[in-house]
Amino acid sequence: MSRTLAELTVAVRDFADARDWQRFHNPKNLVLALVGEVGELAELVQWRTPDEATELTATLAGRKAAEDELADVAIYLLRLADELGVDLSAAIEAKLDRNERRFPRT
Amino acid sequence: MSRTLAELTVAVRDFADARDWQRFHNPKNLVLALVGEVGELAELVQWRTPDEATELTATLAGRKAAEDELADVAIYLLRLADELGVDLSAAIEAKLDRNERRFPRT
Amino acid sequence: MSRTLAELTVAVRDFADARDWQRFHNPKNLVLALVGEVGELAELVQWRTPDEATELTATLAGRKAAEDELADVAIYLLRLADELGVDLSAAIEAKLDRNERRFPRT
Amino acid sequence: MSRTLAELTVAVRDFADARDWQRFHNPKNLVLALVGEVGELAELVQWRTPDEATELTATLAGRKAAEDELADVAIYLLRLADELGVDLSAAIEAKLDRNERRFPRT
Repeated sequence: MSRTLAELTVAVRDFADARDWQRFHNPKNLVLALVGEVGELAELVQWRTPDEATELTATLAGRKAAEDELADVAIYLLRLADELGVDLSAAIEAKLDRNERRFPRT
Repeated sequence: MSRTLAELTVAVRDFADARDWQRFHNPKNLVLALVGEVGELAELVQWRTPDEATELTATLAGRKAAEDELADVAIYLLRLADELGVDLSAAIEAKLDRNERRFPRT
Repeated sequence: MSRTLAELTVAVRDFADARDWQRFHNPKNLVLALVGEVGELAELVQWRTPDEATELTATLAGRKAAEDELADVAIYLLRLADELGVDLSAAIEAKLDRNERRFPRT
Repeated sequence: MSRTLAELTVAVRDFADARDWQRFHNPKNLVLALVGEVGELAELVQWRTPDEATELTATLAGRKAAEDELADVAIYLLRLADELGVDLSAAIEAKLDRNERRFPRT
């Protein structure tokens, strides 16, 4: 069952706290960690053609790699929003609302 | 109220579909778009000291900027997971479980 | 005339010093600034097809944008190597030598 | 001896050509490869304090890692500029000239 962003935020925070990692988790470090994980995501698709990249998750190894790297990016994003005191779910909805007005439907 | 990742994924997908943007949203393009937004997040903290970065959301302008850029990163991450057919909520939980065994609590 | 990396490194360092910017130019900040500029580079190609991206510099506006963003990335890379005391030209040549042995010619 | 950007560009191009890699080296792929290498650079400093990051190259292992990752970023940047037909040395000098007018010396 898909969990709320608030639940996932707490799960990720508790994980870090239980390991005393929150002392490393200031916003600058978390942005850098996010960059590291986005870099690994880029490596998964960099030499693939667009069609091959679309088929990345068609093999078990590709699926595992994609799940792994997407999760890593998400985990640091949740930690970063949490450390900055931002409600990420609300921020996403506010942004979609704003974009709804900026970009009319076709 | 915080929404589930599955709900947010559908909201973000519908937004793109209503604008006929899904034709741009292949995995390679979405990784590049994610990189663009992570770059904007980096710009928010690059010249701040660690303490200043921690205080980024203490001003209204800083809070708005952080919410905006975090939402943009999240939106492309949700779109990317969706296009790759990855259940991001499950991937995060699987990763936390795996890390629970890899990194013992202190 | 193409200049050496050593000459460009000094030009970029002098530029920063003349503005008292070296106090911001520690390695972490420079990596974040590099990320910001790489993000702008990504934005230039993110929605283009591979063929359209190859043609980016065929228009004057595209050429100016590419030159601008490539220069920004290069400038922060030179500053970063300089602050870390790394001779970038020697590092590139050492890497090419090492790769020459790792990856045989076809 | 530090080499010119034009010489390094040719060395890096020849290396790719000798391995028939130029077929992978379109601008989108090269931006993604650059992102992957910038991610590895970020990993070198992400959990270090600013002072620790400044001291990265004080140990032999840190120096080797920094040289290695900086070279990888530089190599893809040179390949990208080359594929886009941009004279990177001239672009850097043009940018410094433009910034000289935009940002007065202190």
